[in-house]
Amino acid sequence: MGVERKRWSEAFSEWYNEVIETAGIQDKRYPVKGMNIWLPYGLRIMRNIERIIHSEMERTGHNEVLFPALVPETEFQKEAEHIVGFEDEVYWVTHAGRDPLDVKLVLRPTSETAMYSMFSLWIRSHADLPFKVYQIVNVYRYETKHTRPLIRVREISRFFEAHTAHDSFEDAEKQIKEDLEIFDNVAKALALPYIVSKRPEWDKFPGAYYSVGAEVMMPDGRTLQIGTMHNYRQNFAKAYDIQYETEDGEHEYVHQTTFGMSERLLAATIGIHGDDRGMVLPPEVAPIQVVIVPIPKKDASVDVFAYAEDIADELRKAGFRVHVDERDIRPGRKFYDWELKGVPLRVEVGPRDVAGRKAVLARRDTLEKFEVGRDELVDAVRKTLDDVQKSLFERASQLLSSHIKRVETVEEAKEVFEDRRGIVEIPWCGSEECGLRMEEELDAKMLGTPYPEEKAREGTEGKKCPICGREAKFIARFARTY
Amino acid sequence: MGVERKRWSEAFSEWYNEVIETAGIQDKRYPVKGMNIWLPYGLRIMRNIERIIHSEMERTGHNEVLFPALVPETEFQKEAEHIVGFEDEVYWVTHAGRDPLDVKLVLRPTSETAMYSMFSLWIRSHADLPFKVYQIVNVYRYETKHTRPLIRVREISRFFEAHTAHDSFEDAEKQIKEDLEIFDNVAKALALPYIVSKRPEWDKFPGAYYSVGAEVMMPDGRTLQIGTMHNYRQNFAKAYDIQYETEDGEHEYVHQTTFGMSERLLAATIGIHGDDRGMVLPPEVAPIQVVIVPIPKKDASVDVFAYAEDIADELRKAGFRVHVDERDIRPGRKFYDWELKGVPLRVEVGPRDVAGRKAVLARRDTLEKFEVGRDELVDAVRKTLDDVQKSLFERASQLLSSHIKRVETVEEAKEVFEDRRGIVEIPWCGSEECGLRMEEELDAKMLGTPYPEEKAREGTEGKKCPICGREAKFIARFARTY
Repeated sequence: MGVERKRWSEAFSEWYNEVIETAGIQDKRYPVKGMNIWLPYGLRIMRNIERIIHSEMERTGHNEVLFPALVPETEFQKEAEHIVGFEDEVYWVTHAGRDPLDVKLVLRPTSETAMYSMFSLWIRSHADLPFKVYQIVNVYRYETKHTRPLIRVREISRFFEAHTAHDSFEDAEKQIKEDLEIFDNVAKALALPYIVSKRPEWDKFPGAYYSVGAEVMMPDGRTLQIGTMHNYRQNFAKAYDIQYETEDGEHEYVHQTTFGMSERLLAATIGIHGDDRGMVLPPEVAPIQVVIVPIPKKDASVDVFAYAEDIADELRKAGFRVHVDERDIRPGRKFYDWELKGVPLRVEVGPRDVAGRKAVLARRDTLEKFEVGRDELVDAVRKTLDDVQKSLFERASQLLSSHIKRVETVEEAKEVFEDRRGIVEIPWCGSEECGLRMEEELDAKMLGTPYPEEKAREGTEGKKCPICGREAKFIARFARTY
Repeated sequence: MGVERKRWSEAFSEWYNEVIETAGIQDKRYPVKGMNIWLPYGLRIMRNIERIIHSEMERTGHNEVLFPALVPETEFQKEAEHIVGFEDEVYWVTHAGRDPLDVKLVLRPTSETAMYSMFSLWIRSHADLPFKVYQIVNVYRYETKHTRPLIRVREISRFFEAHTAHDSFEDAEKQIKEDLEIFDNVAKALALPYIVSKRPEWDKFPGAYYSVGAEVMMPDGRTLQIGTMHNYRQNFAKAYDIQYETEDGEHEYVHQTTFGMSERLLAATIGIHGDDRGMVLPPEVAPIQVVIVPIPKKDASVDVFAYAEDIADELRKAGFRVHVDERDIRPGRKFYDWELKGVPLRVEVGPRDVAGRKAVLARRDTLEKFEVGRDELVDAVRKTLDDVQKSLFERASQLLSSHIKRVETVEEAKEVFEDRRGIVEIPWCGSEECGLRMEEELDAKMLGTPYPEEKAREGTEGKKCPICGREAKFIARFARTY
């Protein structure tokens, strides 16, 4: 029996919702729509992802802070575009105890409006710049669309946001580059290939000068945004009066950027690497990297449990996260459970393995099984886990690249979306009118133009915008999105 | 100059508020009263405390979960006493976007009402018991009293709560014992001596069968509750219908307990170990355990910075958290900063130290300085940090025990509170009437009776309740509290 991905690819939405519950990621039965409960196993994976984020943040000199989740209405309303962008989707706290509040409070949908009046107190001089902080918090958005665990929710319980301030536009641009490098390290740990696009003007973050988004492609061909970087220029600095004194004693507004990620990283990991048996977790973030299943036989005189524990000890000492499944149920049932939970490597030990000083290794990604001598076990586990991490990335990369199609006409683009979903790249004159028209005709969203910007023009030479017929200035990407 | 604790003891409230800001723990200028911002240094200490809690929870088989912060009004109102206890201090979310919500949402003040309808789905059989989960989350209480950072706030951003379910009262009692053991390990890491009291009936947690609280004493003699354990018996199980099937196929309600701690652990650590120069952090949770200050001299030919880095490397390899302060400011200013921030050990290296292959160590707790040879440095650092950890606990224990006074009359008790604040132990008949009367006369709160219960009667023999003159059944503890 090889890897089957029929249900995973053909009924992905069902597959996903089911796995979220059966694999112990979240419970969706909480009595508020769009707010789910993190179950222990799901949270352990998320904590491992967060650990990588914390370590990347530390590496790049970001300090962790923690702001209150409630923002006074007066602060919330300082940046005009930002209010318009969020006012339809914020939760309002209007009462405390039995009394109405004098100033209503917003449950943060993101933290610009909570943070920036403090930035104006903290940042005084050029010596304070660049200023780099981040937090991982819960944020709230009153989603009116269909909700989906980890993907579209009303409480994002693990929302990552980095906020920086700089003395120049150029330095802020460097920050966006650093964000992309951080994002790439996180994505690598999750074995996730992705594309980066500069969002069109009409889809920028409210208040941003420009926005960049990183997308993965889910098995149903729809894209999922899992990272965003925004250069705000001085928009928020002017609204919140964040000025610094230059070396010459002048006062200037700072340039700001933000960088956001969330529990969608986990949604992507679960969705992209799965198969019909359940999840396949990249070893770098799997809470259990190796599960050892002792297979005792009646009347056998050898102790498979002791042998299993001995292997576990050695693997733990070598730094692996190991679990020995000693439950009193049939091995087949254990295989089923751990395959569903995506443990990347299983080690089976029966009486014959004890006698022959060996063990059977079973890879979760390919379902291959092979025998390894007891003395080579640690090396074999290390090598196999490395292989799994790499293979997952390669399999996902093939899937992604085979679903990016460059076309020249709206008809061709439509065919792509009819045939099989994916990402369409098409020449574009750059006008909002033509962009929106294509979105409408394709019933898809423009992700934007390839980023960094030098890539946005590659292959446009001699090409025309299929809507207006004018010369194409950019390649525009379209997709059905989550 | 030895250790001065004049301002710390005589103007503690001012001292505390100042240190919270100047040492970089929190910023109190956030524009919502009682909601403060965690600054990087404060958060690093808190994260170290949380790491200890996570590891204790793992050791004792608690699984981490994460529930939404919003609770529907309908769930919130299921346990009668609980509503009465909290309805005056919850924040209400009444609107989303522009629309009023059909069912109003409460921002959790604690998570019983969020969790227990799910427990009734998760717990089916005796095999599911004991059931042990925990989370570290933000909770909200509309405090009408004077707020104070980390102590009395409207957003408790780091609230720890463990919730368990058991098949019997006895098993729930065992859990309370385990909670006390966990608490003791946490307190030890923070070098905090404490007392444990069983709360009087009128001061139980709303909905609890009984409540136990752990208190420390702050420098001004007021006590601070930093841990609570509650046995709910079947109160919530009945309200939320949490039943399990016994081995005999009967259906029974579970017995439940909870265990709570919070950022008050940090408040206690800061308050209790401080002195007039600022904080003194216990090495186990100090983000920086050793700060190395190179003291270059003009014209000196040796490189004190390289020497400092070399020492730092060796200490880091030995597992210590080390920072080298290479700022271009005077050493005295550096000493001042790190003393304020409570770094337990400073290493000073000047040209003569380089030449003589030695270094000067300065303990933060005693302010003692002594020379150590370069080759003995790692051992000396290890030993000194161990000493600091122990000495902090001993100094605090002396302060606490010298402030617990056993008396027999209300007059004597009053004198204690007049003379110097602290904790008064007094015989008590056990009646609510006499208890409340003593609270009133002493203008103090009854913490409860010593716990475990065998201690509650120690020394009551032949003693009378000073209010009614009847035979004393318990020792009751009173204090001015935070």
